[in-house]
Amino acid sequence: MMRRSFQVAARLGHRRALLRTPCILPGLDPAAAFGSSTDSLVSRFCPVKTDLKDYALPNASWCPDMLSLYQEFLEKTKSDGWVKLPSFKSNRDHIQGLKLPSGLVAASDKSDWRIFTRCIQVEGQGYEYVIFFHPFKKKSVCLFQPGPYLEGPPGFAHGGSLAAMMDETFSKTAYLAGEGLFTLNLNIRFKK
Amino acid sequence: MMRRSFQVAARLGHRRALLRTPCILPGLDPAAAFGSSTDSLVSRFCPVKTDLKDYALPNASWCPDMLSLYQEFLEKTKSDGWVKLPSFKSNRDHIQGLKLPSGLVAASDKSDWRIFTRCIQVEGQGYEYVIFFHPFKKKSVCLFQPGPYLEGPPGFAHGGSLAAMMDETFSKTAYLAGEGLFTLNLNIRFKK
Repeated sequence: MMRRSFQVAARLGHRRALLRTPCILPGLDPAAAFGSSTDSLVSRFCPVKTDLKDYALPNASWCPDMLSLYQEFLEKTKSDGWVKLPSFKSNRDHIQGLKLPSGLVAASDKSDWRIFTRCIQVEGQGYEYVIFFHPFKKKSVCLFQPGPYLEGPPGFAHGGSLAAMMDETFSKTAYLAGEGLFTLNLNIRFKK
Repeated sequence: MMRRSFQVAARLGHRRALLRTPCILPGLDPAAAFGSSTDSLVSRFCPVKTDLKDYALPNASWCPDMLSLYQEFLEKTKSDGWVKLPSFKSNRDHIQGLKLPSGLVAASDKSDWRIFTRCIQVEGQGYEYVIFFHPFKKKSVCLFQPGPYLEGPPGFAHGGSLAAMMDETFSKTAYLAGEGLFTLNLNIRFKK
């Protein structure tokens, strides 16, 4: 594991703290697409039965700190309103059944599409992360452990890999809160 | 190839247009480490003879537009002062011989370290890019073609993958201009 790993907290509604400005596409209201509530978006996003592999589960590469935090938040899903989000290979799996505006129909060719933050398939080499979402608070926490394929300066995670992890956490938060889909602005100030 | 591919232009010295604020580490002056000029940094960065694989060369996945722009800039390296930067598997290869401050000595374990923007090894699936740098103007142009592993919303490159490409272009520009190594701020406004 490299230095510059971190825990991302994303919360909507606090503009001054918002790193990312979400954008609702013209003609697309994700909340309205499935009813009108965050709950219905979340229940669709987290299918109880699926054959899809969930990459947001512990594996042998997770360090003790990561496992400990995972268990801590898993406990909170039982009593405190938090939801552990599954993470499939592609966003295409997450939005199955969502009708996109005509200008946004994705190519349906045979390419092996992958969401960027699951682009590296070997356990522990790239992104290891899990996002917990609180539908009522519209808040997320991402536990993240960068692997050696995310390097920038020797021994440190690439600034771009951290930016991507933050962007992904915010985009899932905004999507499930029914408030956005695309990134418009991304402003990050690294503390150290 | 996905929508949202682009050509990144990075130029130092124009603060208002600068997406990324570079940071010079205490105790590390990359220009001074090899003499005092950008030219000596560039010549060290671009070894004439090396066994290292250069990933910034055309391959079968490059689209005609990418190849055409590559040829256009390659011509400019012959007469217009531009330099095509090689891109090795890890920044550890690029900075061989550079003495880092003691607090920044990277682990020398047997991990397969990779620079983040070369983390996907299958041609055409991830990042395909090449950076041209102009030492006198302290300006870079990055030609970039995103593959299906960089996806965010279906059919579109992930905002984080674009942020990482911009960060990498700026970091190489800042490094070769002797002006930085780490990202402190990253502010991006996507136009469309």
